[in-house]
Amino acid sequence: MLKILVIHGPNLDILGAREPKIYGRITLKEINSKLLKLAKEKKVGLEIIQSNHEGRIVDLIGKSKDKFKAILINPAAYTHTSVAIRDAISACGLPAVEVHLSNIYSREEFRHNSLIAPVAKGQISGFGENSYLLGLLAVLKLLGPQK
Amino acid sequence: MLKILVIHGPNLDILGAREPKIYGRITLKEINSKLLKLAKEKKVGLEIIQSNHEGRIVDLIGKSKDKFKAILINPAAYTHTSVAIRDAISACGLPAVEVHLSNIYSREEFRHNSLIAPVAKGQISGFGENSYLLGLLAVLKLLGPQK
Amino acid sequence: MLKILVIHGPNLDILGAREPKIYGRITLKEINSKLLKLAKEKKVGLEIIQSNHEGRIVDLIGKSKDKFKAILINPAAYTHTSVAIRDAISACGLPAVEVHLSNIYSREEFRHNSLIAPVAKGQISGFGENSYLLGLLAVLKLLGPQK
Amino acid sequence: MLKILVIHGPNLDILGAREPKIYGRITLKEINSKLLKLAKEKKVGLEIIQSNHEGRIVDLIGKSKDKFKAILINPAAYTHTSVAIRDAISACGLPAVEVHLSNIYSREEFRHNSLIAPVAKGQISGFGENSYLLGLLAVLKLLGPQK
Amino acid sequence: MLKILVIHGPNLDILGAREPKIYGRITLKEINSKLLKLAKEKKVGLEIIQSNHEGRIVDLIGKSKDKFKAILINPAAYTHTSVAIRDAISACGLPAVEVHLSNIYSREEFRHNSLIAPVAKGQISGFGENSYLLGLLAVLKLLGPQK
Amino acid sequence: MLKILVIHGPNLDILGAREPKIYGRITLKEINSKLLKLAKEKKVGLEIIQSNHEGRIVDLIGKSKDKFKAILINPAAYTHTSVAIRDAISACGLPAVEVHLSNIYSREEFRHNSLIAPVAKGQISGFGENSYLLGLLAVLKLLGPQK
Amino acid sequence: MLKILVIHGPNLDILGAREPKIYGRITLKEINSKLLKLAKEKKVGLEIIQSNHEGRIVDLIGKSKDKFKAILINPAAYTHTSVAIRDAISACGLPAVEVHLSNIYSREEFRHNSLIAPVAKGQISGFGENSYLLGLLAVLKLLGPQK
Amino acid sequence: MLKILVIHGPNLDILGAREPKIYGRITLKEINSKLLKLAKEKKVGLEIIQSNHEGRIVDLIGKSKDKFKAILINPAAYTHTSVAIRDAISACGLPAVEVHLSNIYSREEFRHNSLIAPVAKGQISGFGENSYLLGLLAVLKLLGPQK
Amino acid sequence: MLKILVIHGPNLDILGAREPKIYGRITLKEINSKLLKLAKEKKVGLEIIQSNHEGRIVDLIGKSKDKFKAILINPAAYTHTSVAIRDAISACGLPAVEVHLSNIYSREEFRHNSLIAPVAKGQISGFGENSYLLGLLAVLKLLGPQK
Amino acid sequence: MLKILVIHGPNLDILGAREPKIYGRITLKEINSKLLKLAKEKKVGLEIIQSNHEGRIVDLIGKSKDKFKAILINPAAYTHTSVAIRDAISACGLPAVEVHLSNIYSREEFRHNSLIAPVAKGQISGFGENSYLLGLLAVLKLLGPQK
Amino acid sequence: MLKILVIHGPNLDILGAREPKIYGRITLKEINSKLLKLAKEKKVGLEIIQSNHEGRIVDLIGKSKDKFKAILINPAAYTHTSVAIRDAISACGLPAVEVHLSNIYSREEFRHNSLIAPVAKGQISGFGENSYLLGLLAVLKLLGPQK
Amino acid sequence: MLKILVIHGPNLDILGAREPKIYGRITLKEINSKLLKLAKEKKVGLEIIQSNHEGRIVDLIGKSKDKFKAILINPAAYTHTSVAIRDAISACGLPAVEVHLSNIYSREEFRHNSLIAPVAKGQISGFGENSYLLGLLAVLKLLGPQK
Repeated sequence: MLKILVIHGPNLDILGAREPKIYGRITLKEINSKLLKLAKEKKVGLEIIQSNHEGRIVDLIGKSKDKFKAILINPAAYTHTSVAIRDAISACGLPAVEVHLSNIYSREEFRHNSLIAPVAKGQISGFGENSYLLGLLAVLKLLGPQK
Repeated sequence: MLKILVIHGPNLDILGAREPKIYGRITLKEINSKLLKLAKEKKVGLEIIQSNHEGRIVDLIGKSKDKFKAILINPAAYTHTSVAIRDAISACGLPAVEVHLSNIYSREEFRHNSLIAPVAKGQISGFGENSYLLGLLAVLKLLGPQK
Repeated sequence: MLKILVIHGPNLDILGAREPKIYGRITLKEINSKLLKLAKEKKVGLEIIQSNHEGRIVDLIGKSKDKFKAILINPAAYTHTSVAIRDAISACGLPAVEVHLSNIYSREEFRHNSLIAPVAKGQISGFGENSYLLGLLAVLKLLGPQK
Repeated sequence: MLKILVIHGPNLDILGAREPKIYGRITLKEINSKLLKLAKEKKVGLEIIQSNHEGRIVDLIGKSKDKFKAILINPAAYTHTSVAIRDAISACGLPAVEVHLSNIYSREEFRHNSLIAPVAKGQISGFGENSYLLGLLAVLKLLGPQK
Repeated sequence: MLKILVIHGPNLDILGAREPKIYGRITLKEINSKLLKLAKEKKVGLEIIQSNHEGRIVDLIGKSKDKFKAILINPAAYTHTSVAIRDAISACGLPAVEVHLSNIYSREEFRHNSLIAPVAKGQISGFGENSYLLGLLAVLKLLGPQK
Repeated sequence: MLKILVIHGPNLDILGAREPKIYGRITLKEINSKLLKLAKEKKVGLEIIQSNHEGRIVDLIGKSKDKFKAILINPAAYTHTSVAIRDAISACGLPAVEVHLSNIYSREEFRHNSLIAPVAKGQISGFGENSYLLGLLAVLKLLGPQK
Repeated sequence: MLKILVIHGPNLDILGAREPKIYGRITLKEINSKLLKLAKEKKVGLEIIQSNHEGRIVDLIGKSKDKFKAILINPAAYTHTSVAIRDAISACGLPAVEVHLSNIYSREEFRHNSLIAPVAKGQISGFGENSYLLGLLAVLKLLGPQK
Repeated sequence: MLKILVIHGPNLDILGAREPKIYGRITLKEINSKLLKLAKEKKVGLEIIQSNHEGRIVDLIGKSKDKFKAILINPAAYTHTSVAIRDAISACGLPAVEVHLSNIYSREEFRHNSLIAPVAKGQISGFGENSYLLGLLAVLKLLGPQK
Repeated sequence: MLKILVIHGPNLDILGAREPKIYGRITLKEINSKLLKLAKEKKVGLEIIQSNHEGRIVDLIGKSKDKFKAILINPAAYTHTSVAIRDAISACGLPAVEVHLSNIYSREEFRHNSLIAPVAKGQISGFGENSYLLGLLAVLKLLGPQK
Repeated sequence: MLKILVIHGPNLDILGAREPKIYGRITLKEINSKLLKLAKEKKVGLEIIQSNHEGRIVDLIGKSKDKFKAILINPAAYTHTSVAIRDAISACGLPAVEVHLSNIYSREEFRHNSLIAPVAKGQISGFGENSYLLGLLAVLKLLGPQK
Repeated sequence: MLKILVIHGPNLDILGAREPKIYGRITLKEINSKLLKLAKEKKVGLEIIQSNHEGRIVDLIGKSKDKFKAILINPAAYTHTSVAIRDAISACGLPAVEVHLSNIYSREEFRHNSLIAPVAKGQISGFGENSYLLGLLAVLKLLGPQK
Repeated sequence: MLKILVIHGPNLDILGAREPKIYGRITLKEINSKLLKLAKEKKVGLEIIQSNHEGRIVDLIGKSKDKFKAILINPAAYTHTSVAIRDAISACGLPAVEVHLSNIYSREEFRHNSLIAPVAKGQISGFGENSYLLGLLAVLKLLGPQK
């Protein structure tokens, strides 16, 4: 079965508690349930990981090539500062889709620039938890029909 | 029935013929068919318009409020230059979703900045014609279940 | 009788409905009435046009020379993006007064720069509909007493 | 009787003698006469002060609250350099109108930026002495009809 | 017979009347006569259009592919602001030559940057009406000898 | 008893040995003793942690909400590069005080910008180990008298 | 007895009345009482001066060397614009501590840069009146134990 | 007979061998032949010089006034770095036409800025060797009919 | 007798005591003696004033026209921040020579820009007290031989 | 025996598999063999570590002082983003040599700036695995002959 | 006898003929006569050289150390572009005085920056040929009384 | 025998005398001896040239193709200003290695940017004369084993 690596970046572990005006009240657990439900419908497997450690995210992506077919990633704060994650994505060779809960373009200036976007296939931002679900659909479109 | 205004910005009328390495070989007519098919499935109506005229796009958005519930727009070149379309979207009050065929963040520097994004609900870029389909799904998520 | 060309730029057709916190609740029709009433008092004629089309505004200014003595313009969004309107004003040779409903200097950074101001005689911003009325008085001062 | 504080910034004491190509041949005394005449017509009182001292202008604005209903100010050179006057205006809470004799947007680059404009209600520039008269009318419009 | 599309951008309709110190006293009609005379000598056909509308210029270029072999364009004010015309030129696939009456590099800073130049074959500026005639010769050189 | 989380960022473990001209000869152990002594006097508890790992600092802050009432942090090098720690502080909701041993404004240009300061309550820099002690007093002032 | 010069910069005379959301409701008189009380406890003398005049602040600092051992200064608006005060501090040779009521790093961009900080010993910002009290403690730490 | 000075800047001596994808396979000798043939047709004399030395190009232009009527120059790399050549052209008072083999606006960012263009009459770039031939025609147009 | 106004800007009153590594050990009194001695030799009168107040310097320059023939000014810190002094110099119409004790171009970046230089006749910097003496000679050269 | 710490930064663990057009086909294991062989020849010891974790690299450098005489580091992606590693190198006091496989100056703009270079002794980039070998030789030259 | 090297940079050979509005009508020969006359009075020797070649100026400065005691240089266009001349001056160790005929700060933006000034002792600009004479006096002041 | 062209840029002729704190006390003659000794060991020939003339360096590189297999260059000051040398290197097609005595990244800002680096194979900086020796080794590695 086709497997997809889902990565949640820093501070997403406390989602729901964290600034609900920007990020909503949904928790990461609830998002993961929704993702798993959709994955089940679409008959793909997911491995979901959250980490606050840039290095660990780089480790994961570096080892993803044989086990996964694609990456769905919300790099959160590392979107704007991590060349290492950017290099990992472009090095691993898997198609990656970047998602954001909030519309990063209507927030502070420094959040308008994504170091990840140029090496991702595409980017989806602003739809809350639906950014993830649309992102998973986008991944499936990119991979095309599987035998 | 819930109606959504779909706007294709400048040069999208010649899609398919236009730089296929960047935009793919699909034509606008084919994208529209796919959008209409998905809309039918989802039981929403679409009004689809293409224009190369910034002023006409502003006219359309200005008059959209009573007839439509949301806007799905690929502002194309006007993404980077039109304060008028930005103001129209923010003036009309309808939720808008911005889509792009190509990943604008892996292209020329001047395409990295969207004047539209800060007033849109969210942005989807890089998935070819699927950006539109995901965008329509995003619109439906934003509007929530309809009675 | 002395005639003045009054131009309302993009999105001003939906004034009143549009973001009342920034632009107030007055409609364009009401502004025009106030302008016409003042013009009548001052014994000058007005021709008032609203357009969302940059090209049409350029057309109008280009043909204004013989028929009008001055231009009163709220370029709205085109203030910040239209070199074409700037060139039209400077080419037609008529004195022009630039007005804005809102104080553009207390809004987003990109609204602080006017491409029109350097070729206008002067600029009035921040007084709501009174910007237009003060602008008309300014035009009359510029033209001086008429025989 | 409603009283308005009128402040003339640095170098305006030598108006008329000073670079007449930019500022015209009118003297400050003549401008003040015109302002007082208009004030009389409109039945408002004016207190008019000129100072070359940033600190003195800050002093005046700081003590203006109880005695005046509004401020009409030509900050001249301090327009571009004085955070202190900006803070004074925003601290005193009175509505302020900023005026300029010349069109600051058609002069040197560094004159295009006003530190005062974001805390003023509005700005009028480019109409010579008429900028003051229009500015006084604008103040009266802002204050609305007085009982 | 080989046909070339000639496009005159905004404000060129009033040439001759417009700021003669910068643009000279020649009218667009006279330039067109000179162009047609040269075209006749060189045995090529011209279709000459002037428009103040960015959208209309995009329309024309979008439909030019089958009828024309090359484009000769003076984008005027749109040189500096139109990504849409840039995209149209690069989408249509025809070789384009960009011309300017005045030397844009000895004018205001904002006129030094051409959005069109990177997608044109070459650029000619500063020779008044001769920029057009040299531009037409350049087009013919680019197309090479025709059978 | 009221508890405060004290975080020492990267390279502070080798304080004393590290560039004494900039950071002084005091060791982290000595600073901690001074902090604990002051905390004892003020009857508050401290939990003191040093880490060179951005991710670990994010982890700690993310879990701080229930156990602590405030954060005292010297983000050291991460001051200038970590959006993740900034987001963690703003997400956890606790008041945070940012301290620096050296005066970061008299050092290299890139050290003048703090990503943390906009989400901290306040910042104290330049007083060597006393920055920490003053920072702890500042925390206590922010929390107000405890019952 | 050890004496310290305390300088309050422009607009601090109207504290309490001035934008309480940013600066709180405390008056300068109340801050001065708190400072004097703390000074008395610590057995140091204070001379406290408020001025809106940059030149007067420069005068004071220029003459401070013989009478005072240190300077505690809230340069307010002059923080961002006064090279003269910066030069005065660095010329007089006394250690100076810069304080701010509000967190200048969470306000407008132009307030993020302090011309004073590079020549001060340290900076404390964001703790309301406590910034002054902490600042006085910092001064005493800098001066060390007095005989 | 009317004489024109033709200057080839640095590295043009190895044309043909040099990066043919950018500069084509034509040699400088061949370009010179074409120029001389056209000059003969037009009955003007040419003096053609190539130099890699900025100083020598300045020498030549400095002494050109009496012997020549105009300058045709491809400043090559010195286009972007030589204020000395710019000053020489503007000092000698002869009309100068700047040409480039490649389209400098579709190359690296630093090649988009010409220090020479503001003092030249006009610029022609992007047409390979034809840039020179068109440049010679432009020179003749500038000089007008000769007796 | 020809009279020249000599203005010493802020912090020059404490020269000699102030950072001798940058400004030397000479006092203002000694510089003034040297200036007066040279003036006597050259048979011109001097009026010498030092002020830390920008406003007072503006006052002085504004009233200088009738009494003086030229201005010799060391604007010190106001060199970099005072548009008001710049405007005063350009308004008064007298030729002004700007001098600096230190070489402002080998100091901090912000000292490289002089707001005064563009309206002065010339600038002399870096020669310690000799900058003043050379400056006085320069003034005399500018005024030419006096009868 | 003299020992040198060799640090490989993020993503270097997957070298060989990673974008061979940029980084070549050699693996990290092969590079390490070459390094160890050269070290043996030169009679120095190496400790070689690869980590994707910025914090771990900081830990290692912080503890390197007693055990090692120098550091050879390829900071990879952290070259451009890690102030923490920069501070660690400058804090530990050991001479460090920075190496890069690819020529970072012919890649994306953001890779042209190294935060590490200013605190390293020197930098070698662009020679593939030979960058490391040359780097080791450079380290030995820096340390000079060992007894 | 004390000898001073005088260097005239590019295009100064054609002074007098060159743009007299900016540079005056005096020729280099006349300036040199004036310099030699003053040198004779002051009993110093001069060696005067003009060159348009950056490399030759570097050669001269590089060999100046033994023969000369100081350098008087008008680097002209190379002021703004030559790091090589800057390095030569700072390498040779002789005191250098930089002079300019025109006031470089009232001309084009790019002329405001001098690469030479930071390594010169001082700079004199704007006094026409008197800049040289004042410059020679400045050199003598720097060298102090000679035995 | 394989021959390599070694180019020393401006001011390197006076090495040893020149600012020894930055460049060391070694002379160019000594560096050349070391280079020739190493070349002899490695059985390659060297042709070593020093020039202060940008144009001469361009001449040399332009004619290097047939006689040499690679270039070893220390462009010195021209590193930061010479597009001509950059173009020469990229035109000649030989592999080039750029070396610097000092660490250019720990010096003035303007020395951080190399115009040469993007067209060189690699860069070595900061190791004094060893930069050259390592550079020669790098050249040999690039050329690979010779038959």
